[in-house]
Amino acid sequence: MQFPRDVVGMRRDLHRFPETAFLEYRTASVVAERLSDLGYTVKAGAEIMCMDDVRGIPSAGDVEAAKEAALQAGASPKWLDKMSDGQTAICGEMRRGDGPVLVLRFDMDALPVHESDAGEHRPANEGFASQCEGRMHACGHDGHTAIGLAVAERLARAEARWNGTLRFIFQPAEEGGRGAQPVVASGLLDDVDIFLASHLGCQLPSGQIALAADGFLWAEKWNVTFSGTAAHAAMCPEEGRNALLAASIAVPGLYALPRDGQSDTRINVGLLHAGRTRNVIADRAYLELELRASAQEGLQRLTEGARRTLEGAALSQGVHVEIDVYGTAISAHSDEGIMKRLEAAVQETHSGTVVRNWPIGGGDDATFMMQRVQDRGGQAGYCLIGADITAPHHASLFDFDETVLENAVNLLTAFVERSA
Amino acid sequence: MQFPRDVVGMRRDLHRFPETAFLEYRTASVVAERLSDLGYTVKAGAEIMCMDDVRGIPSAGDVEAAKEAALQAGASPKWLDKMSDGQTAICGEMRRGDGPVLVLRFDMDALPVHESDAGEHRPANEGFASQCEGRMHACGHDGHTAIGLAVAERLARAEARWNGTLRFIFQPAEEGGRGAQPVVASGLLDDVDIFLASHLGCQLPSGQIALAADGFLWAEKWNVTFSGTAAHAAMCPEEGRNALLAASIAVPGLYALPRDGQSDTRINVGLLHAGRTRNVIADRAYLELELRASAQEGLQRLTEGARRTLEGAALSQGVHVEIDVYGTAISAHSDEGIMKRLEAAVQETHSGTVVRNWPIGGGDDATFMMQRVQDRGGQAGYCLIGADITAPHHASLFDFDETVLENAVNLLTAFVERSA
Amino acid sequence: MQFPRDVVGMRRDLHRFPETAFLEYRTASVVAERLSDLGYTVKAGAEIMCMDDVRGIPSAGDVEAAKEAALQAGASPKWLDKMSDGQTAICGEMRRGDGPVLVLRFDMDALPVHESDAGEHRPANEGFASQCEGRMHACGHDGHTAIGLAVAERLARAEARWNGTLRFIFQPAEEGGRGAQPVVASGLLDDVDIFLASHLGCQLPSGQIALAADGFLWAEKWNVTFSGTAAHAAMCPEEGRNALLAASIAVPGLYALPRDGQSDTRINVGLLHAGRTRNVIADRAYLELELRASAQEGLQRLTEGARRTLEGAALSQGVHVEIDVYGTAISAHSDEGIMKRLEAAVQETHSGTVVRNWPIGGGDDATFMMQRVQDRGGQAGYCLIGADITAPHHASLFDFDETVLENAVNLLTAFVERSA
Amino acid sequence: MQFPRDVVGMRRDLHRFPETAFLEYRTASVVAERLSDLGYTVKAGAEIMCMDDVRGIPSAGDVEAAKEAALQAGASPKWLDKMSDGQTAICGEMRRGDGPVLVLRFDMDALPVHESDAGEHRPANEGFASQCEGRMHACGHDGHTAIGLAVAERLARAEARWNGTLRFIFQPAEEGGRGAQPVVASGLLDDVDIFLASHLGCQLPSGQIALAADGFLWAEKWNVTFSGTAAHAAMCPEEGRNALLAASIAVPGLYALPRDGQSDTRINVGLLHAGRTRNVIADRAYLELELRASAQEGLQRLTEGARRTLEGAALSQGVHVEIDVYGTAISAHSDEGIMKRLEAAVQETHSGTVVRNWPIGGGDDATFMMQRVQDRGGQAGYCLIGADITAPHHASLFDFDETVLENAVNLLTAFVERSA
Repeated sequence: MQFPRDVVGMRRDLHRFPETAFLEYRTASVVAERLSDLGYTVKAGAEIMCMDDVRGIPSAGDVEAAKEAALQAGASPKWLDKMSDGQTAICGEMRRGDGPVLVLRFDMDALPVHESDAGEHRPANEGFASQCEGRMHACGHDGHTAIGLAVAERLARAEARWNGTLRFIFQPAEEGGRGAQPVVASGLLDDVDIFLASHLGCQLPSGQIALAADGFLWAEKWNVTFSGTAAHAAMCPEEGRNALLAASIAVPGLYALPRDGQSDTRINVGLLHAGRTRNVIADRAYLELELRASAQEGLQRLTEGARRTLEGAALSQGVHVEIDVYGTAISAHSDEGIMKRLEAAVQETHSGTVVRNWPIGGGDDATFMMQRVQDRGGQAGYCLIGADITAPHHASLFDFDETVLENAVNLLTAFVERSA
Repeated sequence: MQFPRDVVGMRRDLHRFPETAFLEYRTASVVAERLSDLGYTVKAGAEIMCMDDVRGIPSAGDVEAAKEAALQAGASPKWLDKMSDGQTAICGEMRRGDGPVLVLRFDMDALPVHESDAGEHRPANEGFASQCEGRMHACGHDGHTAIGLAVAERLARAEARWNGTLRFIFQPAEEGGRGAQPVVASGLLDDVDIFLASHLGCQLPSGQIALAADGFLWAEKWNVTFSGTAAHAAMCPEEGRNALLAASIAVPGLYALPRDGQSDTRINVGLLHAGRTRNVIADRAYLELELRASAQEGLQRLTEGARRTLEGAALSQGVHVEIDVYGTAISAHSDEGIMKRLEAAVQETHSGTVVRNWPIGGGDDATFMMQRVQDRGGQAGYCLIGADITAPHHASLFDFDETVLENAVNLLTAFVERSA
Repeated sequence: MQFPRDVVGMRRDLHRFPETAFLEYRTASVVAERLSDLGYTVKAGAEIMCMDDVRGIPSAGDVEAAKEAALQAGASPKWLDKMSDGQTAICGEMRRGDGPVLVLRFDMDALPVHESDAGEHRPANEGFASQCEGRMHACGHDGHTAIGLAVAERLARAEARWNGTLRFIFQPAEEGGRGAQPVVASGLLDDVDIFLASHLGCQLPSGQIALAADGFLWAEKWNVTFSGTAAHAAMCPEEGRNALLAASIAVPGLYALPRDGQSDTRINVGLLHAGRTRNVIADRAYLELELRASAQEGLQRLTEGARRTLEGAALSQGVHVEIDVYGTAISAHSDEGIMKRLEAAVQETHSGTVVRNWPIGGGDDATFMMQRVQDRGGQAGYCLIGADITAPHHASLFDFDETVLENAVNLLTAFVERSA
Repeated sequence: MQFPRDVVGMRRDLHRFPETAFLEYRTASVVAERLSDLGYTVKAGAEIMCMDDVRGIPSAGDVEAAKEAALQAGASPKWLDKMSDGQTAICGEMRRGDGPVLVLRFDMDALPVHESDAGEHRPANEGFASQCEGRMHACGHDGHTAIGLAVAERLARAEARWNGTLRFIFQPAEEGGRGAQPVVASGLLDDVDIFLASHLGCQLPSGQIALAADGFLWAEKWNVTFSGTAAHAAMCPEEGRNALLAASIAVPGLYALPRDGQSDTRINVGLLHAGRTRNVIADRAYLELELRASAQEGLQRLTEGARRTLEGAALSQGVHVEIDVYGTAISAHSDEGIMKRLEAAVQETHSGTVVRNWPIGGGDDATFMMQRVQDRGGQAGYCLIGADITAPHHASLFDFDETVLENAVNLLTAFVERSA
């Protein structure tokens, strides 16, 4: 296959083949291939991911299907073979002298969102919309991956001025927050001196660069199952114990958990599957929800309230509820040293106006990497690259201003040259 | 394949291969084969079903899979070929002289219920539990089909005393009430003088026969879709329009619709699927529900209330709701002439104690056949054959007292001999 | 005061002065005075009511206010003095020879309903609407009392043909079902051979008489209190435990309790008071509700479900719930002997078409009297006197066809003459 | 009466006689009397309040009862006579030379909260608990009033160093935010150069002074009425249109309105009264609620959502809903000049550690006064005086650290001496 070399072209190619968490086989292969071509030493799969305790790994069937589709879309079998069972992380490393170890992190996964085919939606209009029904790059990770590859190309040039060990990490499964922890567990962050992650958009307009994202939320992701008793809905409804009704009672109760005077909070029940057929009282209901707060204590209050709400709904219907804590997220802060070098890089490259802090408005499991680096004495940062967007992140009309991609490449290249 | 000849054996064989609505390929093949062997003229598929306006016909893929599984389970390709696209009804007809046209109706479909593997559950304990994951004969239609075939065998004997045209109809898709109408539409009931349908169980104990079922409920089946707007659940929840929340608000409201002073009512939301992923405000929710009432006016009040409830929930979340009336059911009454002959047949065969009326407690779309027969001047009836049950109809522990099967065969045979 | 002597006049006078449970001071005084004038031996208050264990007796202040208003409306102080603390029952007894002891029961209480002043509402239009703001005879007890007094007058005549002991009981507090039990507890029903209660309306048209009401519902009346924790609604909502929200979650859950395949059920939350002020999380909510079922087992299922629903709602909000079983109601059946004599009386007096059974559609605590009479070997009955109504019972536009009153007087008079 | 002269004594005396919005007759009289004794020119009632368009003025009966109770508690009839119809504001003015016009604002009203009688609660333990059943100073306004009077005493001394016009405003009805606007409407703020309001507590610990409160919330206060149709709850529930159920459906929906990515929000339904009696479908429900947001756009999104939620709930039950916007609140900011003088005053008086901004966590209608002063070219500020509290504001166990009162008096005195 012919993978483009310009950053906009790369982004558009990636946009066509969105792949969801731990199934980024085509994307990861393309990344690995390009990094290898550029002279980076590439590690993939089990070498840099330790999948113990990871939740929500796709089934073998889904993995097979994703690999097959990746092959069809031009992925190289060589790389696919290294990434068994959802281990779709890629790392490209290059060494020049004995300077610091510096990591740039990019994420590759897409979302299970149907992309709009409206005329006003540029990917549809200009022919690079998702070719994968029900999946979409609706959070800009296609842009992130393209930026990463373009920066890798710049810094691989002989004339690039840096000294040390340069490591590009392309992680899977940032959505849902499950991809970073296995990479951390593999030890890949243990010797890092300087770490930088970045994100496009996040309500920050084109032309602005936020030195540090803040407002990372503490979070828990729960999978909840209500189990009741089926019964004929007309003959003997009183014999049933209605799991669907219990779930429906719980949902508004969850959203209605009190706002917190000391913490910003978020609640979402993103999926609810209950019951099987019309004339049977539903004996099972399954929910996926997420609870977030700007402070750890706020999250604890929220989870206590959510637990009470779910158990109360179960009690009301005489059904059983099981809560599975599927994932967690932590907060993070950017080190001052990173911010200073970023600011200088912005000024040097004229890549935008500097904003000091800007709320990320969600989460990113790069925080687990930042924490590890900082725990080991390194410096970590997370910056935001402003980009006008056409619709909220995760919406089916989401698109971003591609003109910022080149600036982002300049900025990150300059950051590395100032840091290593 | 070797299909048993005794009624209990037939029932147990059928119990092993439960097939849901419009997918009863193995059951229908077995029935057709046996009827044919007994000397009946057999019609199948499109000959006796007019599928215009039928809702919920399975997809081509599901039909193919069901046919394939039926073949594996011993179905004859000869019959399968006649039953395209879910047209799984079978009719066996025999003529002796110019007496009346008499129809016995049996139903063949199973339910999407997981059969229990508890030791106390006889099908599990004695080795005839469902071999089809997620499907189960949890309403006794396996017994109905076995009875039908045994009665057909008796009446095919030379010594059987009857005169006229005898027609056995084995219908698909009684659950959900979609199988009878296509048969009616084919004209198969237009010349019928005497029609009898029957059901096992329905809370009537073993040893009792109810001459007429009553309490058939008027019903509407609705498929409901809420459509909202997706948004990032943490970054900008206020941009979303939450279809999952709208559905959850609607559900308790539906169950809470007022009891009716003039009509017995039933409401069930049997299925709810909403949302796609945890950190996106759900933009779609889908419900399947059923509304029933003992009187047509009561059903109208109920449907008006349900419509308001759904629209109110949609309004509250700023989402759109679409209500698709997926099916309807009507009530019916048994003719006195049928009941008198049934009573005489019970006494002749010592098959049980007579009860005049007994509430069916649900519905049966045989009522559409009864209505057609009665509209054309014929007589129709619906009797209940008592059978102790181990759990409510549609429950995963449902089983019935098999000793009543032989009595039922005697009774229906005697009924035909008295009627034709 | 001048109390009318014709049954319509009496009804209209009583309609003007509706008095609610245990506060029927003016009505009871008028009844006592008239019975006394007619030659009956009158007992009142504590002589025929044993108020131990009675719930919801009005406060001393309410009793004083009601007595004062009764005096203003023409009540005689002589009778008021006999009726302390809500003991507003009246019994008039007359003896002629040694025949059976026969009781006719009438009820006197009104409802806390605002009477409509619409032009179409006859009481408003013809000037006999309630003069008591917020109270109304919206269930026809004004008619019942008027009939009782008119029958008492007829049977007090020398020419009336009866032999035995005739007892008229005018009970308070039928609404809410709290007035009959204290009368039973006083022993007033212990020697009764024949007992008849009756009710106007109940959807039975004018010109029809139902020999027996059926469908009396088993019932429990609950007062429920949720207790939480107040907090500043803006500063620290997370510190609150919201009792108002718990109650609001419980209410739809209560109405959504499953319809029962074996029993007709009713649920109503008729009153909800919660919270105190806008910017404080409400720490208290109070509900009054009623649960009814046509069978005792159905009521038990309903109360179990309601208890779970209330406790689940409390758990969900971390609040405490206390359930106070405020009252109960039982079912009853009419004896055949009573019905036969009633049927004869209807025919003799040409007072209407006979219907055998008719659903009362609610309850009447006369069932406690019936049970006591039947337990002691007597016969009891409850008949319905058809009367066209203008709006449902308890509605603010409720009125009934007054032309049936005279027929009712004839019928009950004839019933007594045939029975005693 | 003998009103104490020391600030703690004054606070405790006021604590015993809590008076709610527009009924602060005893408090206002005491304030007026003391100001007058100190030599201030006192204005009261209609002179400084323009009650046009004010919502929630108490009934004439409540006013009379409050005046009577105030007299019993030692209020002077002279002042009561000036404060008709809830016009309970007091202003004391003193002039020395031609310096600036300087206003200090204090609030006097208490809350409808039951004060705890627990041993751990100092007012109960030391004998100064509320003597007014169901009312309590649970937000520290007793302390505010005491501070105001103590400062007035200090500045009235000959040796006090200030020059200009000094105006003390003691306003009613801060809770609910209805007392400030009538004072503004009277013109009393139109000529002000310097304005300062202050509040105790608000989670700021003893020993800290916040120069400016921030986080004032934009707010709307709504009174909502659902109107349905009554019906007999057992006989014909289907005829009813249940307003209580509509309200109960709306409440969780309101709390469940989406968190806002751009604005901090608050929602509370603080009062719900519905229905009249147990066996009648409730035809009326009344709610009092408050919606707040940190930004005007956030409040608009919130009110739109709340309106949809209320209308959706009404639609679902076929009832009518009426929304009455009862009050509003606006945000405010403190001028830098005020903060600088405050900081100097803190340092001069050693009254605590300086914190620049601190979230007030609620609202204060002093913002209307601040807005008017700033609109007219003056400077306005709002500071917080740290005080350890024993329970959240508005809770029945609320109490604050009285040792801060003296410091507060020193601080405000010094502020005035530096400003005028």
